Amino acid sequence: MSITANDPSRKTWLDISKDTDFPIQNIPFGVFLTRDDIITIGTRIGDFAIDLGALHQLGYFEGIPLTDDIFLQDTLNDFISDGKKTWRLVRNRIADIFDEKNEALKNNQDHRNVVLFTLDEIEMQMPVQVGDYTDFYSSKEHATNVGSMFRDKETALLPNWLHIPVGYHGRSSSIVTSHIPIHRPKGQTMPEGASEPVFGPSKQIDFEMEMAFITTDANLLGEPIPVDEAEEYIFGMVMFNDWSARDIQKWEYAPLGPFLAKNFASSISPWIVTMDALEPFRTEGPKPEKELMSYLQYTGDKSFDIKLEVYLKPENTSETLLSKTNYKYLYWNMSQQLAHHTINGCPVNSGDMMASGTISGPTPDTYGSMLELSWKGEKPLVLEDGSSRSFVEDNDTVIMRGHCENESMRIGFGEINTKILPVFEPKKK
Amino acid sequence: MSITANDPSRKTWLDISKDTDFPIQNIPFGVFLTRDDIITIGTRIGDFAIDLGALHQLGYFEGIPLTDDIFLQDTLNDFISDGKKTWRLVRNRIADIFDEKNEALKNNQDHRNVVLFTLDEIEMQMPVQVGDYTDFYSSKEHATNVGSMFRDKETALLPNWLHIPVGYHGRSSSIVTSHIPIHRPKGQTMPEGASEPVFGPSKQIDFEMEMAFITTDANLLGEPIPVDEAEEYIFGMVMFNDWSARDIQKWEYAPLGPFLAKNFASSISPWIVTMDALEPFRTEGPKPEKELMSYLQYTGDKSFDIKLEVYLKPENTSETLLSKTNYKYLYWNMSQQLAHHTINGCPVNSGDMMASGTISGPTPDTYGSMLELSWKGEKPLVLEDGSSRSFVEDNDTVIMRGHCENESMRIGFGEINTKILPVFEPKKK
Repeated sequence: MSITANDPSRKTWLDISKDTDFPIQNIPFGVFLTRDDIITIGTRIGDFAIDLGALHQLGYFEGIPLTDDIFLQDTLNDFISDGKKTWRLVRNRIADIFDEKNEALKNNQDHRNVVLFTLDEIEMQMPVQVGDYTDFYSSKEHATNVGSMFRDKETALLPNWLHIPVGYHGRSSSIVTSHIPIHRPKGQTMPEGASEPVFGPSKQIDFEMEMAFITTDANLLGEPIPVDEAEEYIFGMVMFNDWSARDIQKWEYAPLGPFLAKNFASSISPWIVTMDALEPFRTEGPKPEKELMSYLQYTGDKSFDIKLEVYLKPENTSETLLSKTNYKYLYWNMSQQLAHHTINGCPVNSGDMMASGTISGPTPDTYGSMLELSWKGEKPLVLEDGSSRSFVEDNDTVIMRGHCENESMRIGFGEINTKILPVFEPKKK
Repeated sequence: MSITANDPSRKTWLDISKDTDFPIQNIPFGVFLTRDDIITIGTRIGDFAIDLGALHQLGYFEGIPLTDDIFLQDTLNDFISDGKKTWRLVRNRIADIFDEKNEALKNNQDHRNVVLFTLDEIEMQMPVQVGDYTDFYSSKEHATNVGSMFRDKETALLPNWLHIPVGYHGRSSSIVTSHIPIHRPKGQTMPEGASEPVFGPSKQIDFEMEMAFITTDANLLGEPIPVDEAEEYIFGMVMFNDWSARDIQKWEYAPLGPFLAKNFASSISPWIVTMDALEPFRTEGPKPEKELMSYLQYTGDKSFDIKLEVYLKPENTSETLLSKTNYKYLYWNMSQQLAHHTINGCPVNSGDMMASGTISGPTPDTYGSMLELSWKGEKPLVLEDGSSRSFVEDNDTVIMRGHCENESMRIGFGEINTKILPVFEPKKK
């Protein structure tokens, strides 16, 4: 079945801006609270949010095998379980409904009234209930930078790194969507030169610019997913900010990995951009530097050209661009990550989320974390307002933006916008 | 409200064995498939499984605020969300219904027919949908043994260990209940003396004897749980076998912790024994060897005297007892684990599972993993049938049993019984 929704010549009858992240060729999926306080599944074109539950009730998905309540749910998990063929049928149909050549909805004001919302009428929710969240560590530049800082340049990359798409498990319960502010966490740290650890607010709050993919039900316990089948099980992608408390991380992480340094929060962009929408932006990944084990050898282009930017905005002043990087820099791709994750038979389900790890490129202006940009605080960054930052400060807002672009279209992810609040103080009783 | 269900003098009208793990004072909660292929929530007394959905429909829980379908669900998550007061009311009521002094159900054969099942009529399911699973590392003896093997005796325990209840995130999707066989995983390993990693079946499959607790909804993002309130949010406990592939673990674990070495499977005992039922078995834990940070300082006895045993049964021969250990050996208790887990504001929800880490005691016969019992294979264990084991072999069954006991009663967990199958071979098309 062809992805007719991607037709670059298609135009919509909706009034949208030319440089939007969400042209009619994008058609992402998300979950939002409407002006009537109802949670529904929807899509977005330009600055319009579209209620797919209402569209379905009005019969616009006739002929596509969907249960009556598939879009009247709090999460996309069941829709994602329906599989790639259904996602494609629905996305193609949405493109038709909003195509300028189609007047059915355009000319039906009653229908438009219940289907269309402006962005200020809705509140985005978590798009999926995340069953399990995995974070990979797939940028060679990032792993090398971190290794150089905490060990030395010669042994920066550990011996397993070029053989294994290294990953670890993270916390699902603290993944939140854009615009949810995060309290600075408290925890134990071991200050430089101290002999005993101390307790207090983290002094080294950092972001990590990552992308994450969301899977459908993929395999049963015990059954690996072959690398060249992996994409069948990937629904789409979001941007992912893996908040980190570097001082807590340094003291706690040996020998079982980061824990409280990471699980206080991760923030995602709320619209899941489908792999179908990203199809025009496939690109080759870096050449392997070591011969890959056969279960990691793939055919075709499995990486994607996604331009990513990180901004920091102190309270009451303007944004400063901190980093411009690209998803295509990653050494390990999603297909390899999923094949590796399941080579031991680990089951992957609908709504699972797998993040890339910090995406850093070859030059300092492409580093995806403050730790690297300020080289663990040795080279503080100077902001537009003249202030400087080694790490993120209270009331700073970190904004991540991402999009793909070619001659004929732009497919974007919108943004993750997250403010760091001071430490949480319990209310007095 | 007093826990009347715990009255040690209470007897049931059901015909049960004197040494059962499930006397009328236990009343655990589980989920099972009935002879009619319906999934229901139930409890167990002796060798009877009791359908709580049926009991509720027949009006036996009248006066307790419960929704009509609370026990007609696939998991206990919603019941656990109802909170400690409700758990206690229900457990007390069940004790009354089956008390030998109460003839209401006893003399109603029609009701008995729909409420009572024998164990061979049911099939146990996962009791909860695990939102997030965390594994701690709370046995000082285990951490010391592992540290001695892989580093050296002097630096066996890392500097953070006596300050932090070290933990890390695990995989929820591969937690299964007793009697689900597990395929030996394949993966990458770096053999001793080799210069390149190899791929194949793990040669070092190990069990880890742990206990896990299950939480209710505890806190919002950003809000820590004080250590002395933590028990309010713990529903109950199960035994936990954290299957491990030691050779995969050794090659993959630096720097982000174990991943594929653990996430191929974990096995639990299917009946959740409530904290109320364990109340008579509270005991003091080990004295802290370092002064604790204030958020980890607790009052009262927060450990539990739970006797644990591990057996190995090769195919077609009898079981050999490998280890006898006890939950009370753990250095860090559940209240400290939960206070630590949330000190940074990480949210904990109904159905989350937190395992203790391998429980090893002071002497070699109390070690909770094969790695320690056979000292990484240097001292193979001799089994009853004359064969020997350094790690678990194909078609071996590992059985874990656990119970509490005092002069007046025994409260048990039943068993985890898991067979290791050869590596998975995909069916030919």
